[in-house]
Amino acid sequence: MTTQQLVDQIHKKRSFLCIGLDTDLDKIPAHLKQLEDPIFEFNKAIIDATHHLCVAYKPNIAFYEAYGLSGWKSLEKTIEYLNAEYPEQFTIADAKRGDIGNTSTRYAKAFFEGMNFDSITIAPYMGKDSVEPFLEFENKHTILLALTSNKGAFDFQTTVSDGEELYKKVIRISKSYKNSENLMYVVGATKAEYLAKIRNIIPNNFLLVPGVGAQGGSLEEVCRYGMSENVGLLVNSSRGIIYASDQADFAMAAKNEAAKLQSQMAVLLESAR
Amino acid sequence: MTTQQLVDQIHKKRSFLCIGLDTDLDKIPAHLKQLEDPIFEFNKAIIDATHHLCVAYKPNIAFYEAYGLSGWKSLEKTIEYLNAEYPEQFTIADAKRGDIGNTSTRYAKAFFEGMNFDSITIAPYMGKDSVEPFLEFENKHTILLALTSNKGAFDFQTTVSDGEELYKKVIRISKSYKNSENLMYVVGATKAEYLAKIRNIIPNNFLLVPGVGAQGGSLEEVCRYGMSENVGLLVNSSRGIIYASDQADFAMAAKNEAAKLQSQMAVLLESAR
Repeated sequence: MTTQQLVDQIHKKRSFLCIGLDTDLDKIPAHLKQLEDPIFEFNKAIIDATHHLCVAYKPNIAFYEAYGLSGWKSLEKTIEYLNAEYPEQFTIADAKRGDIGNTSTRYAKAFFEGMNFDSITIAPYMGKDSVEPFLEFENKHTILLALTSNKGAFDFQTTVSDGEELYKKVIRISKSYKNSENLMYVVGATKAEYLAKIRNIIPNNFLLVPGVGAQGGSLEEVCRYGMSENVGLLVNSSRGIIYASDQADFAMAAKNEAAKLQSQMAVLLESAR
Repeated sequence: MTTQQLVDQIHKKRSFLCIGLDTDLDKIPAHLKQLEDPIFEFNKAIIDATHHLCVAYKPNIAFYEAYGLSGWKSLEKTIEYLNAEYPEQFTIADAKRGDIGNTSTRYAKAFFEGMNFDSITIAPYMGKDSVEPFLEFENKHTILLALTSNKGAFDFQTTVSDGEELYKKVIRISKSYKNSENLMYVVGATKAEYLAKIRNIIPNNFLLVPGVGAQGGSLEEVCRYGMSENVGLLVNSSRGIIYASDQADFAMAAKNEAAKLQSQMAVLLESAR
């Protein structure tokens, strides 16, 4: 998917919501557990109920990997379903991969070609040659961890050297990578005040913003500091939406929570015009 | 596996060799491709031919993930085979994972419980709460990326703040993590001169050292600067061993390459006494 197609979707749906599919067998409604593939059935129901309210879905790969082969099967079925039924959705493999060149190429093929995700999250610690293999794929997007939403973000990411914090250095240096136009960045909503500084370095790149909702970030603050001319934001909510109810009405409850966020987003998009 | 059991194996076999199972369908002998699971058959043959010469095996997870479900099946069969036939081997999931707390717990369960690996490689960028979930598992080991063997290691890992390079900060701060006795570190053989500095911070922790062979690192240098009282080294070779031949004699050729490294290691262990 091109960035412009994503922007068009955002304006059409008046939403920049990304729904995180952190699907956990211990948290899904009991009646689904009788089915052959409860994880896929859960995801399918959530997607069918919310697709008109969001522009992206983000399966958190760890949750699938935790179930071994059956988890990978559920993941493959989920992405196949998305690509077949809702090809307008921007899909994110939240995998946080990154390795030396020939190994990164393998990961890129797994997610971009094998499963046909539009994007993948990548850790920057190993530097340029660990990231560039992901950037080679046309109309695929590499979402680099910059400033994450967790407490541990302050351990290393905000370390200052030569007046520059590490997350800023990561963003600034990554701009010189080959095909850097395919870069997006993860910036946690819990650190919204940093978004203004980040926009000084990258005025236009898309930011994937986790941490609204369960982790305490504010949607208004994220927009105030982070919205670009092309919106440039994908705000993710996972647990707050998909686990809104653990009963038979879970999909409807998810839709209601997604609708609340979408209506706030519509207002924020309107006032930014 | 306990660290002491690993040390005992090293002395018994006079080897601290780790063999990397970066198994690539494009590089394995043609005659294997007729079989139902060529990747597993290749790994099995390599393991059977080399197990007496090494103390650890390190499947590079990207290579399996690249083949989707069938790749994960090959990985599961490989680790099951290792655990059943050669339980004395220290097994490393070279996965370079790391995410916020509840997600890291998922990855830890996948590799430590689901597949019963002894250890996993982890990226430190997200800090304490992304690493500690892996450290909770008894007699399981978390191998933190410190200074990697690739060129991109100089992009961020050697960034200096307050007189301390990032890789040193990662090592020093990680010592304060809960259950930090379960930590090992990745330090590339291509940067052997850094090992002395690292040993000033962590005199005893095990180091996983990639980059000998194909990437150009020197075994002698690694030992000179990196060997601890308890040896404290696992030196990895992947391509140099497993792709020594692409003919029917591939397992024998792998054995010969592994034997060369093992005999060098035996001398280095003897002279360190």
